Amino acid sequence: MRNDGRESNQTRPVLITAHYIKHAEGSVLIEVGDTKVICTASVEERVPPFMKGQGKGWVTAEYSMLPRATQVRNQREAAKGKLGGRTMEIQRLIGRALRSVVNLQALGERSITLDCDVIQADGGTRTTSITGAFVAMAFAIDKLCKDKKLPKYPINDFLGSVSVGVVGDTACLDLNYEEDSRAKVDMNVVMTGTGKFVEVQGTGEDAPFSRRELDELLELAESGIQSMIRQQEAVLGPDISARIRSGSSAGNRE
Amino acid sequence: MRNDGRESNQTRPVLITAHYIKHAEGSVLIEVGDTKVICTASVEERVPPFMKGQGKGWVTAEYSMLPRATQVRNQREAAKGKLGGRTMEIQRLIGRALRSVVNLQALGERSITLDCDVIQADGGTRTTSITGAFVAMAFAIDKLCKDKKLPKYPINDFLGSVSVGVVGDTACLDLNYEEDSRAKVDMNVVMTGTGKFVEVQGTGEDAPFSRRELDELLELAESGIQSMIRQQEAVLGPDISARIRSGSSAGNRE
Amino acid sequence: MRNDGRESNQTRPVLITAHYIKHAEGSVLIEVGDTKVICTASVEERVPPFMKGQGKGWVTAEYSMLPRATQVRNQREAAKGKLGGRTMEIQRLIGRALRSVVNLQALGERSITLDCDVIQADGGTRTTSITGAFVAMAFAIDKLCKDKKLPKYPINDFLGSVSVGVVGDTACLDLNYEEDSRAKVDMNVVMTGTGKFVEVQGTGEDAPFSRRELDELLELAESGIQSMIRQQEAVLGPDISARIRSGSSAGNRE
Amino acid sequence: MRNDGRESNQTRPVLITAHYIKHAEGSVLIEVGDTKVICTASVEERVPPFMKGQGKGWVTAEYSMLPRATQVRNQREAAKGKLGGRTMEIQRLIGRALRSVVNLQALGERSITLDCDVIQADGGTRTTSITGAFVAMAFAIDKLCKDKKLPKYPINDFLGSVSVGVVGDTACLDLNYEEDSRAKVDMNVVMTGTGKFVEVQGTGEDAPFSRRELDELLELAESGIQSMIRQQEAVLGPDISARIRSGSSAGNRE
Amino acid sequence: MRNDGRESNQTRPVLITAHYIKHAEGSVLIEVGDTKVICTASVEERVPPFMKGQGKGWVTAEYSMLPRATQVRNQREAAKGKLGGRTMEIQRLIGRALRSVVNLQALGERSITLDCDVIQADGGTRTTSITGAFVAMAFAIDKLCKDKKLPKYPINDFLGSVSVGVVGDTACLDLNYEEDSRAKVDMNVVMTGTGKFVEVQGTGEDAPFSRRELDELLELAESGIQSMIRQQEAVLGPDISARIRSGSSAGNRE
Amino acid sequence: MRNDGRESNQTRPVLITAHYIKHAEGSVLIEVGDTKVICTASVEERVPPFMKGQGKGWVTAEYSMLPRATQVRNQREAAKGKLGGRTMEIQRLIGRALRSVVNLQALGERSITLDCDVIQADGGTRTTSITGAFVAMAFAIDKLCKDKKLPKYPINDFLGSVSVGVVGDTACLDLNYEEDSRAKVDMNVVMTGTGKFVEVQGTGEDAPFSRRELDELLELAESGIQSMIRQQEAVLGPDISARIRSGSSAGNRE
Repeated sequence: MRNDGRESNQTRPVLITAHYIKHAEGSVLIEVGDTKVICTASVEERVPPFMKGQGKGWVTAEYSMLPRATQVRNQREAAKGKLGGRTMEIQRLIGRALRSVVNLQALGERSITLDCDVIQADGGTRTTSITGAFVAMAFAIDKLCKDKKLPKYPINDFLGSVSVGVVGDTACLDLNYEEDSRAKVDMNVVMTGTGKFVEVQGTGEDAPFSRRELDELLELAESGIQSMIRQQEAVLGPDISARIRSGSSAGNRE
Repeated sequence: MRNDGRESNQTRPVLITAHYIKHAEGSVLIEVGDTKVICTASVEERVPPFMKGQGKGWVTAEYSMLPRATQVRNQREAAKGKLGGRTMEIQRLIGRALRSVVNLQALGERSITLDCDVIQADGGTRTTSITGAFVAMAFAIDKLCKDKKLPKYPINDFLGSVSVGVVGDTACLDLNYEEDSRAKVDMNVVMTGTGKFVEVQGTGEDAPFSRRELDELLELAESGIQSMIRQQEAVLGPDISARIRSGSSAGNRE
Repeated sequence: MRNDGRESNQTRPVLITAHYIKHAEGSVLIEVGDTKVICTASVEERVPPFMKGQGKGWVTAEYSMLPRATQVRNQREAAKGKLGGRTMEIQRLIGRALRSVVNLQALGERSITLDCDVIQADGGTRTTSITGAFVAMAFAIDKLCKDKKLPKYPINDFLGSVSVGVVGDTACLDLNYEEDSRAKVDMNVVMTGTGKFVEVQGTGEDAPFSRRELDELLELAESGIQSMIRQQEAVLGPDISARIRSGSSAGNRE
Repeated sequence: MRNDGRESNQTRPVLITAHYIKHAEGSVLIEVGDTKVICTASVEERVPPFMKGQGKGWVTAEYSMLPRATQVRNQREAAKGKLGGRTMEIQRLIGRALRSVVNLQALGERSITLDCDVIQADGGTRTTSITGAFVAMAFAIDKLCKDKKLPKYPINDFLGSVSVGVVGDTACLDLNYEEDSRAKVDMNVVMTGTGKFVEVQGTGEDAPFSRRELDELLELAESGIQSMIRQQEAVLGPDISARIRSGSSAGNRE
Repeated sequence: MRNDGRESNQTRPVLITAHYIKHAEGSVLIEVGDTKVICTASVEERVPPFMKGQGKGWVTAEYSMLPRATQVRNQREAAKGKLGGRTMEIQRLIGRALRSVVNLQALGERSITLDCDVIQADGGTRTTSITGAFVAMAFAIDKLCKDKKLPKYPINDFLGSVSVGVVGDTACLDLNYEEDSRAKVDMNVVMTGTGKFVEVQGTGEDAPFSRRELDELLELAESGIQSMIRQQEAVLGPDISARIRSGSSAGNRE
Repeated sequence: MRNDGRESNQTRPVLITAHYIKHAEGSVLIEVGDTKVICTASVEERVPPFMKGQGKGWVTAEYSMLPRATQVRNQREAAKGKLGGRTMEIQRLIGRALRSVVNLQALGERSITLDCDVIQADGGTRTTSITGAFVAMAFAIDKLCKDKKLPKYPINDFLGSVSVGVVGDTACLDLNYEEDSRAKVDMNVVMTGTGKFVEVQGTGEDAPFSRRELDELLELAESGIQSMIRQQEAVLGPDISARIRSGSSAGNRE
C-alpha cells in the first residue's frame, strides 16, 4: 500500500480544466493529484530563424515552476539570470515529445509555443506538463482549423506521459514527490494513443536496474498513459478526438 | 458609462481565495475582474546580509507574469537572462508598501518573501498584487503566531491599493487594460486602513495634469482602497482582522 | 534651521554650465549644492525598432553614478553585469518626464538619448538629472533647428523637478543627502513651466502620510520647480526660451 | 552494409591513450572512430556546499566541444555567456552515470570533476565521454589509493556506454554522425560491467517506436557496451581491473 | 607640423585639478588637451579574497568612458551587461602599472581602487588615466599618512605615461584622436621618475616596425613622461613629492 | 643553467603536427615543450557586420584553456558566463598579430577564425598560439587557393612569437611556467619573417627595467622567433613557404 493509499498500478486523480487562461489560443489547468500545471498554447505566424523558408511549422515548449510551487521556496531563474540544467532538459523533452505527433508540414509556416507553468508541485511535473500541453495544443489547432488556416489536420496521434519507478522493491505507477525522492529507479515514459514509444528515460543513479525491472516498468507506464489519454479525450470532446484518431489511422505523418 | 458597464467610481468584482497553494505559509488567488494573481508568502528564518545582526526582520516581494498572461505572449525574463525595468520597479514598490505596515522589530530576525505571479492580466496587476500579498502575508504571520514565534503582533494596519486614471475626460477608478491603454493620466495609490498614504505614483506622460485632477483622483482612490480592505477583512476573518485593527489603534509602529 | 543653514522653503544654489562636453549635440554640467551631474543629449537619425515607420521620434534617458560619487564606493553596474532596480526606475522616470514636453511627431523619425552621469552625489540626483537633461535636450534641438532639420519646433513647455520631504516634522524643499536619509516621507515632483504635474511620486515607507502633509509638500515642490525653470531660462537664453514658451501657449502638443 | 563498411552490430575502432594530460590526477584521450575526447579527472579535497558535513564525496562532470570539433564551426558557449541546453543535459547525464558506480561514502569528503572536452566529433560524443571518463576516474582513484587516502576502494563496477538507433529500417550499434542525422530512433544506453542498466534514453522524435524495436536496440547496446568495457580493462591493467571487479562482486554499494 | 600646431616632440597642455570629488580619499580631474579624466582613489580596509592573510595591501583600477565622451555615442557596458575586451585590457594595465611603484607590504592589509572615468576623449585616455591615477593615489596615501595608519611610506617612485606613434613617416609624442586613428605604429609607455620602464606596449597592426623606429619612439616617450611627472610634482606639492623621491632613492621596494 | 637544462638563449623543443582536426580548413597541434595548443582555422564566406560591403576580409582569433590544462583546475569561462580579462587580452593580441601579415583586400569578403585551445599549459601559451595559428591559417588559405577562390595570394610574411624575460638576473628565451612565475620582467614579442616587430609587450610589474635590459630581451626574442619560423617552413613545405616569402619580397601589403 502506498503512502496515499493507492495500489502500485494506480494513477492519482486527474482533472483537466479547459480554457483556463482567456488570452491564449489554447489552455488548460491540469491537476494530477496535488501537482498543478497551467499549460497555454500560443500561436505565432512566424517560425524561428533556423526554420525559415521551409514551408514547415514549429512546436516548442517552455517550463517553469513558481518559486513556491515546492515545499521550500526556490529562487526564480529570472532573478538568477539563467535557466538551470533541469529546466532546459525538461523543456527540450516536452517540445520534442509534442513534435513527434505533429505533422509540421501540415501546420504551415507558423509556430506553437507551449508554456507549462507549475503552480504546485508534488511529483511528475514534467509528465503532467506533457499530458496537459497536448490538450492545450489540440485546442489551439482546433482554433486554427475553425479560422480556416489549415488545409490538412496536423495532429497524428494522441500523446500522454507518466512517471514510473521502483520504490522499495515495488514497481509503482505515477510517483508522488515523497515516492520519487525514495525511488531507486526513476523512469519517464511518453507514448502515443496507438501505443508506440516517443520517449523512454530511465535512470538508476542510486541502483542500476535489471532488464526484468525495465520490462515491468514499461508495462505499468503503458497502462497509465492510456488512462491519461482517456482523460484528454473527455476534455477535448468527440469531434476533436475523432480528428486526432483518424490522423493516426490515416498515417498522415510527415 | 465604461466599456464594461461600470460607473466611474466602481471597482471590478473582487474575489480572494485563501490558502490557494498548499506548500506556502500563506497564499491567496486574488481576482479583480479578469486580472488574476497568485500571491504566496514564504517565511525563512534568516534575513538578507545587509540586515544581519540587527534583531529585525525583512519583508520583500517578487513579481512576475506568466508569458501568456497577456494578449500577446511575452518572452520569459528567465529566458532573456535578466529582469526588465518594469518588473524591478513593481517588485520594489510591492516590498516597500508592505514594509510600511509591518513592525520589523516585532517580526524578529526572519524574512517574508511575497511572490506575486500574474496568471492572467487585465490592468491593475501591481495594485492587485499589493492587495493580495497583504492577505497572504497576514496568513503567514498568523501561522507564526500560532507557532508561538512572535512575542508581539507585527502588523500595524491594513493595506490596500488601486489604480485610478483620467480616461477621456473622466476620472475613473480601477482601470482595466483597455482603459489603461487609453488613459492620459495614470495613478497607483497605496493606502492604509486608517486612511493614510503609503505610495502615490501619478504620471502624465501623455498629458500633464492639473492640481484639481490630482485631487479628484486621490478621492476616487481612497474609496476604492477602503472597498478592497473590506474584502481583505472578509477573507482573513474576524480574529486576524481584529488584531490588525488593534495594531493600528495601538500605534505599535516600529 | 536646516543642517546647511537653509530655510525649509529654500533650494540649494543651482549652477548650470552650458556646452560642457564638446562632442555632444547638447550638454550641461548641472550643480545643485554638492550634487553634480553631466547631462549630454545625443541625436541619432534613427528610432528604436518598436517606433519604426511611424514618422515619430523618440526621447530616452540613461542614468548612472560614478563609483565614487557617493560617500562609500559603489560597485560599477558594468562590473556586476546588470543594471540595478534603482537605476532602471530612475532612467525610466527621466525619459518619461522629458517625453511629456516633446511633440514626438514634430521631432521626426530620430531619437535623442539623454545621458545623466552623476559625478558627485548629495541628494536629489534624479530630480537634478531631469532639470539638467531638459537643458541639454533644448540645446540639441536648437542645433537641429539651426541645421534646418525640424519644420516645427518640438518642445511644448519647460520642465523642472525637485525633491521634497518631511524631515523631523517639517516639510522641506530640495533635500540634501543627510536630510533624505532621515526623511519620513520622500517625494519627487516633475512639473511644467505652466504649472502642470508630469510626475508625482511620494513614498512613506517609514511613515504613512496624511492628505494635509501631501498638500503641503506639493506646494513647496511647485515653488522650487519654478525657481529651477528660471535657471534653465537664464542658461538657454532669450531666443530658445521664447520658442519654448510660445510652444506651451500655442498648445502644440502632439 | 553501413556507410563506413561496418556490420549493424559492430562498433567503430576504439583507442584509449592513458595519462594524456600531465597535470590531471587521471586522464585519457579516447577515440571511437573519428570521435575524439580528452577526459581528465581532477581531485579536490572539498565538496560542493550542498554536500558539506555529510562525510561523503561527490563526482561531477563537465562537457564541452571545441568550436571546430564539428563540420561547421560552433560559437563558444563562453562567448555566448551561457551553457546551452544540450550541454547541460549531457553533463548532468555523465555525472549521474559515473556516480552510479561510486561509493561516495568510501570516497570521503572530496570531489572528482570529470572534464570531457570533445576535440573532434563524429557521433556518440556523450557515450564516448562516459566510457573515457570512467577510465580517467579510475586512474585518479588509483592515485588516491597509492597516496593512502582511501580506507576502502570506492568503485563498484565497470561502466560503459554506446549509442544505438534505427537507421533506415535497421537497428545499428554505435552510430556515426552521418547515421545519427538520419536515424528515426536514437538511444543512448549506459550499463555496468555486470550487465545492469544505469541510463536508458530513447527518443523517437521523427518516428515513435514499437516495443519490439526497443528490445532489439537494448540487445545491441548490451553487446557494444561489454566490448567497450574490455577496452577499459586493457588500458587500466589487471590490478585496477581486479579491484573494480571485486568491488562489484562484494556488493560494496553505498 | 601636426594638425593642432604642435612639434612632433611636444605634448598637449596638461592641467591637473586636485581634490575634484569631495567624497574620495584622493581625486583629480586631469586634462591632456581635450582628453579629460576623473580619477578617484578609494581606500578600503580589506583586500580581495586571493590576498587575504598575507599582511599586504592591494592596488587595482577600473576604467570607463561616459557614453558621449566620444564623437559617436557608445552603448554603456552596464547596459550591455559585460565589460568589453578593450576596457578589461586597459584597467588591467592601469592597476599593474600603479602596483609597480607601491610597496604593498608597507601599505598594510588594505586596498586602493583607482576609478578612471573618461568624461571627454581625444586620444591617450589610458596613458592620461595612469598619470592622473598616480596623483589621486598619492593624495589618498597622504591621507592615510596623516591618519597615522602607515608606519612606512609606501610609494617608491613617480609614475607617468604617454602614447607615442608613427604618423605618416614621423614619430610623434602624445597622439590626439585624429593622429591615433591614422598612426601606423602605436605605442603606450609607462615609466618611473627614475627613468625605468614599467610597461612598453607597441603594436604595428597596420605596418610592422623596425628596431630603429622602436628606438626613436622610446626616446620620445621618455621625454614626454618626464614632463608629465613635473606636472604631478607641481600639483602634489613639495612635501609629498619629496617623500616619493626619497622612496625611490632609498630603494624601499618590497 | 635553467631548471630544464637549457641555455638562456635556447627555446624548448618545438613540434608541429599538421592537419590535426579533420573538419577544419586548416589545423595543427603545436607543442613547445609541455605547452600544447590545438589551432584550427575556420573559413566563413561572410564578414562581421562592421566590415560588410568593404570588399575586404577579416581575420580574428579566440583563445581558451581546457579546465585542467593547468596544475590546478580552472573553472570554465562558459560556466562563469563570461570571458575573463586575460582571455580577452590574449585573443585580441592573436587576432591583431595575424592580421598584420594578411592583405585583407586580397582575402576577399570572407573571414578566417583562428581557435587556439590550450590542452596543456607550461608557459608561453599566447606566443605558442600565435606561432601555431599562423600555420593553421596558411593551410586554410592554401585550401582557398586550391579552390581557386583567391585571385591574389594574401599572406605578406611569416609570423612567429616567443616570450622572453629576466629570471633572477638573467635574460632568458622562451620561459616555461616555473620561470615565468619567478620572472621580474616578462615580455612577449611578435615578429615577421623579415625581422620587423608586430607586437612588443613588456611588463615590469615586480621590477621596472632599464633600457639595456630591454635591448637584451629584444635580441633574444629575435633569434627565438626566427627559429620558430624555420619550424613553420618545415611543416608548411616548400611550395607554401615560397609563396609567403615572395609575398614579403613583393611588398604586397594592403
